[in-house]
Amino acid sequence: MFRPIGVIETCFPECRGTPRQGLFTPSTRGRVVLDKSVISGDALENVDEYEYVWLTFVFDRNVRKKKVDETKTRRAKIWAPKNNSKQKVGVFSTRSPHRPNPIGMTLAKVENVNTKTGVLSLSGVDLVDRTPILDIKPYVPFYDSLKSARTPAWVLNAWQTPRLKVQWSDEALKELVFLVDEKKLCKFYKSSKEVRNALSEVLSQDMRSGNTARKRHLRGENVAVEGMLFCFDFDGLRVKSVSLSETSVRVIHIEDLRIPRVLVAPDDDST
Amino acid sequence: MFRPIGVIETCFPECRGTPRQGLFTPSTRGRVVLDKSVISGDALENVDEYEYVWLTFVFDRNVRKKKVDETKTRRAKIWAPKNNSKQKVGVFSTRSPHRPNPIGMTLAKVENVNTKTGVLSLSGVDLVDRTPILDIKPYVPFYDSLKSARTPAWVLNAWQTPRLKVQWSDEALKELVFLVDEKKLCKFYKSSKEVRNALSEVLSQDMRSGNTARKRHLRGENVAVEGMLFCFDFDGLRVKSVSLSETSVRVIHIEDLRIPRVLVAPDDDST
Repeated sequence: MFRPIGVIETCFPECRGTPRQGLFTPSTRGRVVLDKSVISGDALENVDEYEYVWLTFVFDRNVRKKKVDETKTRRAKIWAPKNNSKQKVGVFSTRSPHRPNPIGMTLAKVENVNTKTGVLSLSGVDLVDRTPILDIKPYVPFYDSLKSARTPAWVLNAWQTPRLKVQWSDEALKELVFLVDEKKLCKFYKSSKEVRNALSEVLSQDMRSGNTARKRHLRGENVAVEGMLFCFDFDGLRVKSVSLSETSVRVIHIEDLRIPRVLVAPDDDST
Repeated sequence: MFRPIGVIETCFPECRGTPRQGLFTPSTRGRVVLDKSVISGDALENVDEYEYVWLTFVFDRNVRKKKVDETKTRRAKIWAPKNNSKQKVGVFSTRSPHRPNPIGMTLAKVENVNTKTGVLSLSGVDLVDRTPILDIKPYVPFYDSLKSARTPAWVLNAWQTPRLKVQWSDEALKELVFLVDEKKLCKFYKSSKEVRNALSEVLSQDMRSGNTARKRHLRGENVAVEGMLFCFDFDGLRVKSVSLSETSVRVIHIEDLRIPRVLVAPDDDST
């Protein structure tokens, strides 16, 4: 019944490292490339009269991971990320990707429209590379903005959690300059300064899985984060960082993504 | 790939008379009834911790009207409702129901959750009765509210257009009391006062088709509205109103919906 209008190309080749909220990572970039067999680039005309758009997309990374049995009823209750209560909640009270219909919606900022090529360039992007896009709608604050809408306390708390402080090692900075400014490895960025900003935003959001932390907590384990390696890929680069404490993280190395991976921190995000 | 999680039951059996924005008709009511073969009522748990939800739905009334040829490319440019320029705009710059993938999103206010029956009662509802629902997501202002996001001038103008003044004839008021308070025709309302509020909100929004007005305007016709009959159905009732001027409308009769229709004002909303 629905056919993607195209895909979004982003800096995030995998779920790991992809921010939960693009509004908090305004320097991340991406572009929707329309499938011309579905719709022409003219469909993007006037989109740049708006500052933000809603993207309706398919959480396709979940679908691939576990084949859904169409005849079965869907899971009604889940662990909500960032909710530290010891109870599952109704799936419709969450924005979790693990939903009956794997349809997501997210905001992104309009940077440029090219109706000839059918490309919509965006920033503040929180989607995995090559996510199928079903729809683009303009953000209209008169309809969409309800500033004081009530939410449960844990949502407010999660939002108010201070961001992590991001440090960079001298090695990581040198590697970044070499790989971005000299080797031109990035598709979305021209200067290492831009990439450094974007990566600092991404890392400050603490992307370690809420589920991993909760499970350890429930098992009575100490959620020690010190020295924990966190590794993810970003626009042609491999980023290696370590947690210094509950409140800070340090980028230790930036590598060429094409070099085979040696050390990978396992991230249990299966529920 | 996607299967509706249920349908929404609303006061609006047809597109005609259904408000464009539920936020402006806070007294309209509806309820999402989950399809238990798809998901259990437990999925609604905790939803009432939020004040508003996003409903992701199928614009199924369009699909039925005109069969989409899946092999063809979709229409890229359309007339935007309320945009009085003489040019079509890119479909992705609009919220029009006539889009490549007929997926809509709208906000509604949470009134009650019943996990046993799998029913989510809502207000401020702007959907046609029995619209298939694909997803329910909580409204989180920290992610979703961008109060000052830029929009084109015509969107602001349309939003600032004063509402119509709604008058009620003595006959209509008498009929309303009889049909609602005595004959109990309404499914969503118990008192005629509530229905009167809801109907006044709905009519004040001027639901005459933007396209009808624009086409007449483009043809050089006088967009005379005086005396124009506007008739629509609402929760078991048939509402007959006339435009008194550009700025006011008068409800002349409220009838039992089950009585065969005699006078219907044609409403050309085909593009």
